[in-house]
Amino acid sequence: MPETNSSGVLRIVPLGGLGEIGLNCLIVQYDDHAFAIDCGMMFPEHYMLGVDRVIPDPTFIKSFGDNFHGYVITHGHEDHIGALPYLLREFPAPVYAPPMAAGLITERLREHGLLSNTDLKVVRPGKSWEMGPFGIEPVHMTHSIVDACGLIIRTPIGTVVHSGDFKLDETPIDGPPSDLQRLSEVGDEGVLLLLSDSTNVEREGHTPSERVVRDGLDSVFAQCPGRVFFATFSSHIPRLRQVIELSQRHGRRIVVVGRSLNNSIRIATQLGHLDYPPSVFAEIGELSRLEPHQITLLTTGSQGEPMSALIRIAEGDHPQVKMVPDDAVILSARIIPGNEKSISNMINHLYRRGARPFHSGNTAAIHTSGHASQEELKQLMRIVRPRYFLPVHGEYRHLAQHQALAQAAGIAPESAFLLENGNVLEVTAAGARRVAPVQAGRIFVDGKGVGDVERVVLRDRNHLASDGFVLAVLAIDQHTGELISGPDLVSRGLAFEEEGQIHLEEATTVVRARLAQMSVASRTDTMEVKEEVRKALKRFFSRSLDRRPLIVPFVMEM
Amino acid sequence: MPETNSSGVLRIVPLGGLGEIGLNCLIVQYDDHAFAIDCGMMFPEHYMLGVDRVIPDPTFIKSFGDNFHGYVITHGHEDHIGALPYLLREFPAPVYAPPMAAGLITERLREHGLLSNTDLKVVRPGKSWEMGPFGIEPVHMTHSIVDACGLIIRTPIGTVVHSGDFKLDETPIDGPPSDLQRLSEVGDEGVLLLLSDSTNVEREGHTPSERVVRDGLDSVFAQCPGRVFFATFSSHIPRLRQVIELSQRHGRRIVVVGRSLNNSIRIATQLGHLDYPPSVFAEIGELSRLEPHQITLLTTGSQGEPMSALIRIAEGDHPQVKMVPDDAVILSARIIPGNEKSISNMINHLYRRGARPFHSGNTAAIHTSGHASQEELKQLMRIVRPRYFLPVHGEYRHLAQHQALAQAAGIAPESAFLLENGNVLEVTAAGARRVAPVQAGRIFVDGKGVGDVERVVLRDRNHLASDGFVLAVLAIDQHTGELISGPDLVSRGLAFEEEGQIHLEEATTVVRARLAQMSVASRTDTMEVKEEVRKALKRFFSRSLDRRPLIVPFVMEM
Repeated sequence: MPETNSSGVLRIVPLGGLGEIGLNCLIVQYDDHAFAIDCGMMFPEHYMLGVDRVIPDPTFIKSFGDNFHGYVITHGHEDHIGALPYLLREFPAPVYAPPMAAGLITERLREHGLLSNTDLKVVRPGKSWEMGPFGIEPVHMTHSIVDACGLIIRTPIGTVVHSGDFKLDETPIDGPPSDLQRLSEVGDEGVLLLLSDSTNVEREGHTPSERVVRDGLDSVFAQCPGRVFFATFSSHIPRLRQVIELSQRHGRRIVVVGRSLNNSIRIATQLGHLDYPPSVFAEIGELSRLEPHQITLLTTGSQGEPMSALIRIAEGDHPQVKMVPDDAVILSARIIPGNEKSISNMINHLYRRGARPFHSGNTAAIHTSGHASQEELKQLMRIVRPRYFLPVHGEYRHLAQHQALAQAAGIAPESAFLLENGNVLEVTAAGARRVAPVQAGRIFVDGKGVGDVERVVLRDRNHLASDGFVLAVLAIDQHTGELISGPDLVSRGLAFEEEGQIHLEEATTVVRARLAQMSVASRTDTMEVKEEVRKALKRFFSRSLDRRPLIVPFVMEM
Repeated sequence: MPETNSSGVLRIVPLGGLGEIGLNCLIVQYDDHAFAIDCGMMFPEHYMLGVDRVIPDPTFIKSFGDNFHGYVITHGHEDHIGALPYLLREFPAPVYAPPMAAGLITERLREHGLLSNTDLKVVRPGKSWEMGPFGIEPVHMTHSIVDACGLIIRTPIGTVVHSGDFKLDETPIDGPPSDLQRLSEVGDEGVLLLLSDSTNVEREGHTPSERVVRDGLDSVFAQCPGRVFFATFSSHIPRLRQVIELSQRHGRRIVVVGRSLNNSIRIATQLGHLDYPPSVFAEIGELSRLEPHQITLLTTGSQGEPMSALIRIAEGDHPQVKMVPDDAVILSARIIPGNEKSISNMINHLYRRGARPFHSGNTAAIHTSGHASQEELKQLMRIVRPRYFLPVHGEYRHLAQHQALAQAAGIAPESAFLLENGNVLEVTAAGARRVAPVQAGRIFVDGKGVGDVERVVLRDRNHLASDGFVLAVLAIDQHTGELISGPDLVSRGLAFEEEGQIHLEEATTVVRARLAQMSVASRTDTMEVKEEVRKALKRFFSRSLDRRPLIVPFVMEM
């Protein structure tokens, strides 16, 4: 249980996504009741060696027990839904999600064997519901996936508005624009607190409409005499619509490569977001019967991900699809920070195959962001006119700049806050302030293990990654202190065979010499022997190679 | 010795820099004679765990014996001089370098104890010299360091022009523009082959002049009420000139933080490239006696490098310099691909300190590249009018696009080549063609070791980085096959203590069970025992944790 609060206290507690891009999960607490907005994962940073994915620490969520009312999902991106299977397994709770997100979550829960145990409710803009002291109403927002929404949250002390991930696209291609009308009405009623997406706060002006991409892509299609490979994120249904319609116009049939795209298209079709006759698509087996100019291959792998279909095709390593000169490749996606090298590497391979890559570095208007730029962010603030403002979804730099931007939209500096994960904003009738933090952090998923890889394991992995290890095995007579066997040294990741062997032989001599200097009493003390062996080897490799392998002495007591 | 060539054969053999950014080293061979243009290093890619730097394989160079005439250096950047100490130690040869490069090389050779043994000659534009069958004449080019040059190389079968790293800056601030006049004269005489810098081939138009940066920086300085931290590369003397002069104009004194900057400024001052009274500078100890608006702190660390002064200051971890609100930080350098995350991380820390960062993401015209864009590249080709063209200095994507660009400058497609490291272009009076490749590759420097870390070591390091290792020690009686001691299991980097311990105990049982199934004959065969232990543990950890630790069985024969 969290500390007992006096009645009438609203607390906003980000568990993820404030201080990083991804891992979005934010707790809204009123007295002892709480729910989470989103439950996202993040891909590991470079130093998280061997980690598959990162999820938020659920400790704080679990502290509410039965008064935790569930997860309210704003949209179906991985950084908003990806941690659900892990957190639900430990701590089941209802999940409220708009249709497309619900479809994607269903897939994920099925994979994890959690579908039948999960109370998954489909929610829609304008249809509100009650959970404990909260009333929730989704509001339609435009974003780079269909069915994205913001949230209007009624609490006993006032209304909180959460933007979700959004842009104010006035000419979206997948439905109406963001529902500024409804937000304006809520603004008229009075909003206590606005939480708003900071991802693109460093961009001036307005984010171009999804519709702008159509012309850019059309002119690229017009230049392509051969096949078009089109790579984007599998859940970007608006973009998929565009490429399907462009392909129709240019007399191309769509071949979908990859499971996640097939899933996504199936779900969107079931929900009515994609509505095309089957003849629009072709099977991969039909490729050889179509002329190159009749083919669009739809793939994922826009980030050059190691096992994606596109990188395998680019490397000439895909069993069914070979790239040939005249093939064009359109990377219609942003570069996720950290992926620059692997994308560049993929582009090199595409040139090696003789293909023609179109990407943000050489072609404008083949992609537009799903996040609001500065003018849109200010517009939202002016429409909602909140008493308090809290930037969400961003690294510190984004949150700080969004906090500063609020002034330009008429929000007083002392009313715009800056929280990082675990920080707590407390709002009462009397005012708003930061209070003592709660437990928040990142949990690492590695293979089947959740949370068993922690800092010390990562430290060892980083140590091993840098200089490998040296294992020293020796057997010592526990009565005489005599060396019965060894020292035998084994190393991996330290140095190449021949050179390494010479060093290991020298190192063996060093260990023997050190043991010879020790008294019989010391030599029968296994801990002492280990420590001396470790020190001697550490010194030796530092001096001889300027390396610091992880040293593992193993003493067998005979 | 290389294979014997018939007389009159010119061969161009890139050993580094063609297929990557960095590691520039290219061999010009005529019959049995050869020299190298540049001898650069590269920082390791992400998968080269523990590697400090990467240098080119000198095997091919050594094959020329006494007919290798030395290294001709185009300018003093690390990717053109950084491998010299390593290659000179193994295979001494004369080094020809323009003054600034010679000054930087002198420092490096002194550090490596190679200064007195190296024949280092300072060369200048317009002053040519002979080496075996070659005549070499440096030609002044503008770049992001002073004393950069291209090379006019006379061979018995014609003239080769190498652009060096260059841009065609018409208003440089450190001397005259690139010497197009001289190149045009050489073009009039007839040029057999042009080698040209491909780094910026993806950029349209012209690269802005260094002078453009002055206005950009001036307007930033004008906005800064407090101290200015200015980060750029230590050898970027033109940029340092600008910031020194701007600081003078704005009433600021320069405090230089860091050894490489101090070295660089000292060398450039000795050579007359910087000429300022000592009062322009202040010591770090004087900081407290100056008003914030009187201070410019000059640092390196624009890439967020882990041990740089700037990141330590940003993290609040520098012993002498504390950052405070109102401090401004100007990152006046390009983002080197692969450094995006660490730079972004540093910017986050700067915001945390309350400082105001100016960088390419939020401020235009505080940096300009030192490499030519498309229009300049075409201009060089039109001036030199070579018979053959070979793009150098770039990844495959850059080389391929530069090859294509040559057509736009009137070079026939069959006259523009594309080589990667180790490929060989052979030019005779009869024509030019690619012939069989030579040995080329990358050598890894790790601590004191050069070349002892190879693919297999990196594979082990990557394996260890991902899942750690499990060591299994057991002692077996060589007559009875009886297990005398063990199996004792030790792991690092696999899983956190408590959970890990449970798995190790289970794993011990698994190993015992496997041994029990083996015949006495098998159990006395150490190799067989090792193999069985390895297999059993591999299977166990794959099933229980979905992880693949490196498994090291150690069997003591008693």
